[in-house]
Parts: sequence; C-alpha cells; structure tokens
Amino acid sequence: MTRIDDVARLAGVSTATVSRALRGLPTVSAATRRRVLAAAEQLDYAVSPSASRLAGGRTGTVAVVVPRITRWFFGTVVEAVEAVLHSAGYDLLLYNLGGRAQARQRVLRTANLHKRADAVLLVATPLRSADLTALTELDLPGVIVSSGTVVPGWPCVRIDDVAAAGSATRHLLDLGHRRIAHLSGDPEDELAFTTHIDRRRGYQEALRSAGVQPDPRLDVESHFTIDGGHQATVELLRRGDAPTAIFAACDEMAMGAIAALREAGLRVPQDVSVIGVDDHDLSVALGLSTVAQPATEQGRLAARMVLDPLVGTAGTSPPASSVILPTRLVVRDSTAPPRAH
Amino acid sequence: MTRIDDVARLAGVSTATVSRALRGLPTVSAATRRRVLAAAEQLDYAVSPSASRLAGGRTGTVAVVVPRITRWFFGTVVEAVEAVLHSAGYDLLLYNLGGRAQARQRVLRTANLHKRADAVLLVATPLRSADLTALTELDLPGVIVSSGTVVPGWPCVRIDDVAAAGSATRHLLDLGHRRIAHLSGDPEDELAFTTHIDRRRGYQEALRSAGVQPDPRLDVESHFTIDGGHQATVELLRRGDAPTAIFAACDEMAMGAIAALREAGLRVPQDVSVIGVDDHDLSVALGLSTVAQPATEQGRLAARMVLDPLVGTAGTSPPASSVILPTRLVVRDSTAPPRAH
Repeated sequence: MTRIDDVARLAGVSTATVSRALRGLPTVSAATRRRVLAAAEQLDYAVSPSASRLAGGRTGTVAVVVPRITRWFFGTVVEAVEAVLHSAGYDLLLYNLGGRAQARQRVLRTANLHKRADAVLLVATPLRSADLTALTELDLPGVIVSSGTVVPGWPCVRIDDVAAAGSATRHLLDLGHRRIAHLSGDPEDELAFTTHIDRRRGYQEALRSAGVQPDPRLDVESHFTIDGGHQATVELLRRGDAPTAIFAACDEMAMGAIAALREAGLRVPQDVSVIGVDDHDLSVALGLSTVAQPATEQGRLAARMVLDPLVGTAGTSPPASSVILPTRLVVRDSTAPPRAH
Repeated sequence: MTRIDDVARLAGVSTATVSRALRGLPTVSAATRRRVLAAAEQLDYAVSPSASRLAGGRTGTVAVVVPRITRWFFGTVVEAVEAVLHSAGYDLLLYNLGGRAQARQRVLRTANLHKRADAVLLVATPLRSADLTALTELDLPGVIVSSGTVVPGWPCVRIDDVAAAGSATRHLLDLGHRRIAHLSGDPEDELAFTTHIDRRRGYQEALRSAGVQPDPRLDVESHFTIDGGHQATVELLRRGDAPTAIFAACDEMAMGAIAALREAGLRVPQDVSVIGVDDHDLSVALGLSTVAQPATEQGRLAARMVLDPLVGTAGTSPPASSVILPTRLVVRDSTAPPRAH
C-alpha cells in the first residue's frame, strides 16, 4: 500500500507538505499542490477521506452526470474522472441519464444534489432553462465537459468540434471526394447535445471552402450510436445517388455505417470511404480513419478542475478557466481516393 | 413529471399502497411491492429520498464496484443498476477499479464503505482473503454479479459460463472444425476474475465430448479486451499451424482477433471462423457470431436484489437466492464450415 512518504518522495516535497497539499491548506502553492496531486494519483495513494474533507467538502463526494455510460466517450471520461477523484479521497456519485429527459429533470431539480455532493461534473448534458435555474440555485461549484452547455461560473473542458469536423471533411476532400455525406445527431432526441451542430458546421464550412455546396440529401440525422449510424446509412442509400465518402459525427456511427455498407454489398474504402470522430478503442482494430479526441485527458482535467475549489486553494490560485484540447487526424484503412467512374 | 397517482394507476393499487410499498413497510406483500417498483421504474418515478430512507437505509446509497466501466459488460450492467436504484430513490456510488489491484484494496478495506453506503454490489470483482475479511466486517448487505466471487450471505446473479463456452465450442464442432483455438483470460492479471477459468472448462469439455483432445498450443491467455484478443491472435499465428476456428472468451477479444486475422491476410470466416461470448452492441454490426448473455437483465435483477433488504420487506419475503440467467447461441457471419484442404 502506498504511504505518504512515497508520495512525498515522488513529488520532491516533505510529508508535511503532502499532508497540507492534500488537505488544501492555503500555505501550499498551487504548483506544489498540483505536483502532489499528480504524485498521489500516479501512486494510487488514497488520503483519509476525513482529512481531505476538512478543507471545505461537506460530503466528500462529486456528482457526475452523463447521458449514457455505455457510450465510449462517456465511459472513458467517467473512468478518468473516477481515478482522479478517488486519489484525492473523493467519492463519485454517478447519474446516468440513459437517454431519458425525465432523468435529467429528476437529477438536476429534485435529487437534492446540494445535500449529496460538494460539486457537480456535467458531461455533455444539455440544459433547459428550468434545469439551469435549478443548478444555479444549488450554489455548488461545477465543471462541464463538452461544448454547448453553459452554466455561469463553471469552467468547461472540451475539443473544438467545428475544427475536428473540418479536419475529417478536408481529409476526404484532399483524397478527391466531392459527394461527401454526413451522419449527424438528431435534434429531436430529447437529450440531444449540441456537439452535432458544431460538427455539421465544420463539415459544411470545409465543403464550402473547397467550392462544394452542401447537399441536404447527403445529410442524415440519427442517434450518436452504432445503430444510429446503421439506420442513417440505410436511409442514405435508399435516397439513391450514393456518396463516395461518409463523414460520421462519431466513431460509433461510423462503425454502424460500415456495417450497413457491407450489408448493401459496398466495400470500404473501395466503393465508399468512411471517417468518424473519437478514436474509439475499436477503431484501430477496425482500421477506421478518424479525428482522435483525448477523452481520458478531458476527464482527468475536468476532475482536477472540479476538485480545485474543494481542496481549498481558492484564493491562492485563480479560478480555472475553460480549456480546449487538441484533436488529431488519424488516417487508417477506411478512407481512400474515390474510384474513377 | 410523473406523480404518485400515475404509478398507482399503472400498478393497479392505491396511492397509499404505492407510498407504503416504496417506503418498504411490511404491510405490503412482496408481489405488490415488486409491481409498484416495476411501475415506478417504467414511469421513471423518483420517490423522495428521505421517504425511501425511512425504512432502514442510512445513506440512501449503494456502492457499486466494477473492474472497468469502459468494458461493454460492466458499462451495460452499471447502466441497468443505476436506472433501478434511482427509480427507488437510491444513489449510486461508483468504484471503478480500472485494472488496479491497489484500488480494490483501497475501496474494500479503507474507504469506510459502511459509512458511505447501505449496501454493496460487486460486479466481477475477485476477492483475496483480506478483502473478504474486510467486506464481512463491514456488515452490509450485498449482491454479486458474475461467478467466482463468494461472500457469505450475498446472493449472486450470473450466467453459466461453462455452458456458454460449451455452446460456442459445440457450434464450431458442429460446423466441422477440429483445430479450434481458445483466447482466454490472463491469470497473471492482478484483477483476473474467474470467468475465464469456467469458459476454458466449457471449451475443453465440449472438445473432449467430441473426441478432440485440447491442444495447449491452441490456448492463448491474454486480457479480456480488444487489444488482448489482438495480441493473443498474433501469438497464435506466430506459433504456426493456424487453427480453422477461434473461440474467444468474450466479444471484445473476438473483435481483436478479427482485426489481427485481417492484418495477417486471413479472411473471416473463409479462412478462420471466430465466435465470442456477450453479444456486445457492436457484434451485430460486425456480423460476429456469439453466445449472448443478458447483461442488462443481470444488472436490473442485481439492483432489485440489493434493494430488497433496504426497502424493508425483510421478514415478509425470503432472502433472495442466487439466480443463473440463460445464454443463447447467435449465429451470424463470422462462423462457417472449414475449407476443404
């Protein structure tokens, strides 16, 4: 079992400093505290929960709200958040909305979150005005992962969705594609977050920059899931005049698209190129080209930002501001130049 | 927002009975309470947490311990558990071990679970004797999902892993395969659960029943992940004298196997058949043959069983006993008869 001495050695400080840092005493600089937290996390060191709560936490718990824990991005973010929270002696209350808007209402308005948690981490959870009012009345600190949701005073960790979609679309344009379809999120979905709006914008802007007019018949809305991508692709093929390439708004949709194309007797990438966004665990196995986003890093960073006001250095460090993490084009086997006709 | 009247109407009882049932008063029969809980869950009805806690819960919280939330089975189980707990007004504390044995030790021995939760739900978490002692000393009720872990007095929800593996292996034998490889779990893995031992036993027993002697060179140990299946298959091909079929101990390993075979220029199923266990969301999209296990149902059932002693009907209904849920062979495109040589 890791002891406080090990953490002190790795962080290059005294055990007294480790103790002060983990308890959030203001005599420790923000930089030193960060180093100690990183060392504690690396060594999987658990501070005594009661000690870490001295500094202002009342429940020793952070509430994490996600749309669907079973989707790659949300599962990966929660795993990263959990590791950081537990290293700091905090517990994680999981609220998984499971695609139900009623669940969001229940969690945000009736669950008495302020009695159950010291802070809230909202992952890609769209808010209606009543939700926002309820959250504001909770008077808890919080952090948001993903764009589109704004709570006054809560910093945000995200990628640039417009740029990510632009990067995927430009890759297809550079290969010579002009009939490029887009599988997008469904705005009718009760829990639709706005990510899909930004990704569509990036797609359309990239097309227009290359002198290609977006064709609404090549833009199909569906769910951000394997099934959603499958259904959207079936619909796309039903409309006739098939595209030579598909930009799916996430890797899970891209996987569904590949399955639907295969069922229709079309080969990837010989007949149709496919690219997604994420870099899902399975994308390398499937040879899927994608724009990788750092899900684990977003979770880790958000967890550290949510702990900031709790471990008590407020006053010694400026409040965390929002962070945009970079994405990266990863070219694999699912994209190629269009066939000559 | 759902009101108590809606739940009463759906359950066919009075609102007073709904209230009594959700508060766990012993004047309600077990059958009626089950009907009310099902109606509340279906309607997404949240009881007031304080009301549901009257009946004996102290924290209104259930601790759920999983090896890796990012794996399909565990994510699916947690999503199902969460929906049932929240419908009953209970919160879910998530402990994700993330592959770290130290994390298990911390959660089970030092996290003061008895102060943080009213019950524990252990999903496929292997226990050492010190863990078991610590859990027993907590004196909390609990439920276990998956086999291999036994805590006295805690019921278990699981599938029959020997039978599931036998079913997959017999499918390959029936197609005419004799050189059938097995990708199994890694016993050196610090968090190895025993599922893989039972699945290997099912594989070997099915082979022997068909007069085929298991060949240790066709049995490769790895992690229960896409990467693990990929590495194991690379190793299998390196050993030479490739099999005509692979039984992977889970679908994620099977997906990694398909990727490795493709990289080696081998076609599935023409050159090598592949089958897994699970029925992962992506298996239908990939055309993967598998033995389906009901992950959502296991999670729902376990959550109801963990709530049983909390909502206060102990004394009116017998304690829950262990449940084994059925699995089902699903034949898709990844399995076919071996080629004639």
